Amino acid sequence: MNWYTLILTELLGTAILIILGNGIVANVVLKGTKGNNSGLMPITFGWAMAVTVGALIANALGGVAHFNPTVTVALAIADKSGKLGFGNYTGIAPIGMFVLVLIFQFIGAIIGQLIVNFVYYKHIQKTLQSGSIEDQLSVLAMHSTAPTERNWIFNFAMEFVGTAVLILAILSFGKFIGGNGLPSYYAPVLVGMVILAIGLSLGGTTGYAINPFRDLAPRLVHQLMPFKNKGSSDWKYAWIPVVAPLAAGIIVGAFFLI
Amino acid sequence: MNWYTLILTELLGTAILIILGNGIVANVVLKGTKGNNSGLMPITFGWAMAVTVGALIANALGGVAHFNPTVTVALAIADKSGKLGFGNYTGIAPIGMFVLVLIFQFIGAIIGQLIVNFVYYKHIQKTLQSGSIEDQLSVLAMHSTAPTERNWIFNFAMEFVGTAVLILAILSFGKFIGGNGLPSYYAPVLVGMVILAIGLSLGGTTGYAINPFRDLAPRLVHQLMPFKNKGSSDWKYAWIPVVAPLAAGIIVGAFFLI
Amino acid sequence: MNWYTLILTELLGTAILIILGNGIVANVVLKGTKGNNSGLMPITFGWAMAVTVGALIANALGGVAHFNPTVTVALAIADKSGKLGFGNYTGIAPIGMFVLVLIFQFIGAIIGQLIVNFVYYKHIQKTLQSGSIEDQLSVLAMHSTAPTERNWIFNFAMEFVGTAVLILAILSFGKFIGGNGLPSYYAPVLVGMVILAIGLSLGGTTGYAINPFRDLAPRLVHQLMPFKNKGSSDWKYAWIPVVAPLAAGIIVGAFFLI
Amino acid sequence: MNWYTLILTELLGTAILIILGNGIVANVVLKGTKGNNSGLMPITFGWAMAVTVGALIANALGGVAHFNPTVTVALAIADKSGKLGFGNYTGIAPIGMFVLVLIFQFIGAIIGQLIVNFVYYKHIQKTLQSGSIEDQLSVLAMHSTAPTERNWIFNFAMEFVGTAVLILAILSFGKFIGGNGLPSYYAPVLVGMVILAIGLSLGGTTGYAINPFRDLAPRLVHQLMPFKNKGSSDWKYAWIPVVAPLAAGIIVGAFFLI
Repeated sequence: MNWYTLILTELLGTAILIILGNGIVANVVLKGTKGNNSGLMPITFGWAMAVTVGALIANALGGVAHFNPTVTVALAIADKSGKLGFGNYTGIAPIGMFVLVLIFQFIGAIIGQLIVNFVYYKHIQKTLQSGSIEDQLSVLAMHSTAPTERNWIFNFAMEFVGTAVLILAILSFGKFIGGNGLPSYYAPVLVGMVILAIGLSLGGTTGYAINPFRDLAPRLVHQLMPFKNKGSSDWKYAWIPVVAPLAAGIIVGAFFLI
Repeated sequence: MNWYTLILTELLGTAILIILGNGIVANVVLKGTKGNNSGLMPITFGWAMAVTVGALIANALGGVAHFNPTVTVALAIADKSGKLGFGNYTGIAPIGMFVLVLIFQFIGAIIGQLIVNFVYYKHIQKTLQSGSIEDQLSVLAMHSTAPTERNWIFNFAMEFVGTAVLILAILSFGKFIGGNGLPSYYAPVLVGMVILAIGLSLGGTTGYAINPFRDLAPRLVHQLMPFKNKGSSDWKYAWIPVVAPLAAGIIVGAFFLI
Repeated sequence: MNWYTLILTELLGTAILIILGNGIVANVVLKGTKGNNSGLMPITFGWAMAVTVGALIANALGGVAHFNPTVTVALAIADKSGKLGFGNYTGIAPIGMFVLVLIFQFIGAIIGQLIVNFVYYKHIQKTLQSGSIEDQLSVLAMHSTAPTERNWIFNFAMEFVGTAVLILAILSFGKFIGGNGLPSYYAPVLVGMVILAIGLSLGGTTGYAINPFRDLAPRLVHQLMPFKNKGSSDWKYAWIPVVAPLAAGIIVGAFFLI
Repeated sequence: MNWYTLILTELLGTAILIILGNGIVANVVLKGTKGNNSGLMPITFGWAMAVTVGALIANALGGVAHFNPTVTVALAIADKSGKLGFGNYTGIAPIGMFVLVLIFQFIGAIIGQLIVNFVYYKHIQKTLQSGSIEDQLSVLAMHSTAPTERNWIFNFAMEFVGTAVLILAILSFGKFIGGNGLPSYYAPVLVGMVILAIGLSLGGTTGYAINPFRDLAPRLVHQLMPFKNKGSSDWKYAWIPVVAPLAAGIIVGAFFLI
């Protein structure tokens, strides 16, 4: 595997993740769409399929399909080989690869959100027309997560537990690969089921970011987009879906060193 | 593989695709059905399963399971072997095969729609009874797609992005086949997941044709069917779900030449 | 494989099919249940999982997992070996096996329905309390299918097309087994997807019996159960879900002789 | 496999089972959550994914993934080798392992429930604020099951039949392992489908505990938690979801001795 294959598949896969993931949120929360107000099932299935499809494509093209700095950090910690979880790619030092992967994930998330905003542009406009705070929050919701009850402790706890389950699953699934050989076209389906489970069960209060860039990059896009009446980008909450997932990734990753 | 196996499985599979795909739309939008007004989930799952079931049957019988000229065109472009993606069939030139496949896909789509219209005939009648435009649009919706907000740029963009994800996935999955060997009974399940993802996330404004014939052939059937009060077949919109998918297929296909 | 394994797994699997299949209908249509009035998705997923789970168990125990005389008849027709699709079982003539399989499928369906009626007994009582025809039809619906629009031609057509897709899929999947080796623990999952597709798309008017015994045996139980105010067992409709599926099975089975 | 791997994966997996399983119930029944009042599909899919994800992780880490004393008891009965279904672990007698597994399952269930209660703490408070019995029952529902119609015979029957299907499936799937080799990363997906089927079809009156500890441990947590106005923990019903599943496990397990 070449190092540029790896970073380009991270960019492409993270863009697809955000297009499909925030695409379903847009379809459910924006006014006048075909999926308007269709509830929890479409959103949780949509995000699960977003992860599965993005990872299938990245895996097929020879990538590692992280799309999430928490996954990258956890694998780097858990990898005793000194390769930071990037395996047998060639041509660049692991630490340089680590930094590049994070940068390309972030760029991918930005590009993905811009595409979502473009294809749903008319509906964003329509939703913001009323000027009500509720409608502004709907537009923010198709970018970033927001808690139902704002409380640092419990919001942090929800994101931490959700991410811990995700990272525990992904690091465990690596053991299948060592053993019976989990096929690279099947692993993304299992991870999609994990995302579905977390979304249904541990997305009830914070909307399960469980990925710092999935929240931060779209929030930045929300901040910069010249929508009239768009309302606040809610930066006060922004640290939770960054810090809690990373903390979970570091701690679960460290457990796999034992 | 014989050339007639290939074109007959295209006809059969495309017919099944339309029967099951527009069948679920009919079940949801027509009056008096068991699934009347049951929302986004049945439609997106129904179309996903339509693709999966059609492709499983075609694959099992030795076909290539395109059912979509965009897929056929993209594979023809991406195939450097000069076989236009048809592999080791025998008995006819690739370009002749290419034309025949498109013709049989179209015929299959027509047959499929005629079967849907036959089995839901009583409910089409019941729906058109009121003579209201809304009910006419419901009957059109079980044939062809229509945008929520009519705007060439954004409608084109939605169909383009949706189809680009589909073609990217299908061409990528071909790399699995080269590598670890994606089984031919498993690939249709993965493609079904891609269709589900696109439907949930990128079907919010145009209803995701992402296949020229899936839209054009049923629209032709709508035009020709002698339903009373059936209303317009909306030919003004018809070019979007033809041109945008083809453009996406050509561009993504060309990328795989690199 | 012994012949008694085959018929006992048919009895067991068909019982499980009806328990899980009519169980979800009971959960959705009866009064006071946890799933009351929860719509199309639970019913179509429930029936799909009923088929998958029943077939997984029967396959694991060494059976053939038909559960449906249409499947048995179609495989018998399509099997040029003279073994009527029963493969290398031992100890009884194919024609005797054929008759026994049908008998045990029917007994299994009866047992399954009795178990459903037992576990939902309190809710059947509660539903019949009002004495209204609508509530009587709900109780009949957890036994047998009924059309939304009563018309022999269109009801027959719906059951015929639905069963044709099912039999076409099952006979095709047999070709996978000959080729790349569809695992016996995976085939039931694919058949479940076919059932889901048919339920969503071709269940809109008749409720997709697509299996004579799935309709006939529970109807017989409905006729014989001593429920007060239970209403008609609707025997006038009963021939459609018997004859239409069998006709589809015979015709599709004959096609596979070509 | 070491014996401590086995009991630690039972603890971890049972905790994940309860976190994800009662997590989705909390999301659906508690006030002010993102999934409030979203119905049967999220709950049945959430519990199915809870089992699948927990078992995938435990299997990957080298465990047996029971999480349920009924499964442990049934496998112990059905295992003629005298190893009580624990296979080739080393370092402790089967009977000691049996007791330890049950203890660690119970501890895991307690830990899982405490985590659910922590992350949904604000919503539990919000739900109990009204002091109405209905809201108290919602909070109990995210701990333990409760019947719609309270009747020992029919409630027992429902739990018995539901658990019988589960155990029959699990013990049957073991036969696949002996035969064609059901991969350890695939079996949990099939078991998830069984859980989905049971939830949809046989969860209509009692809410399908089908696992003594899944009901008992959270009920104990409910009893001990210092929530104001929390209402009764309904200990009168508690024996049903303990005794009925165990009875089913013993009887089905004994059948596999034949």
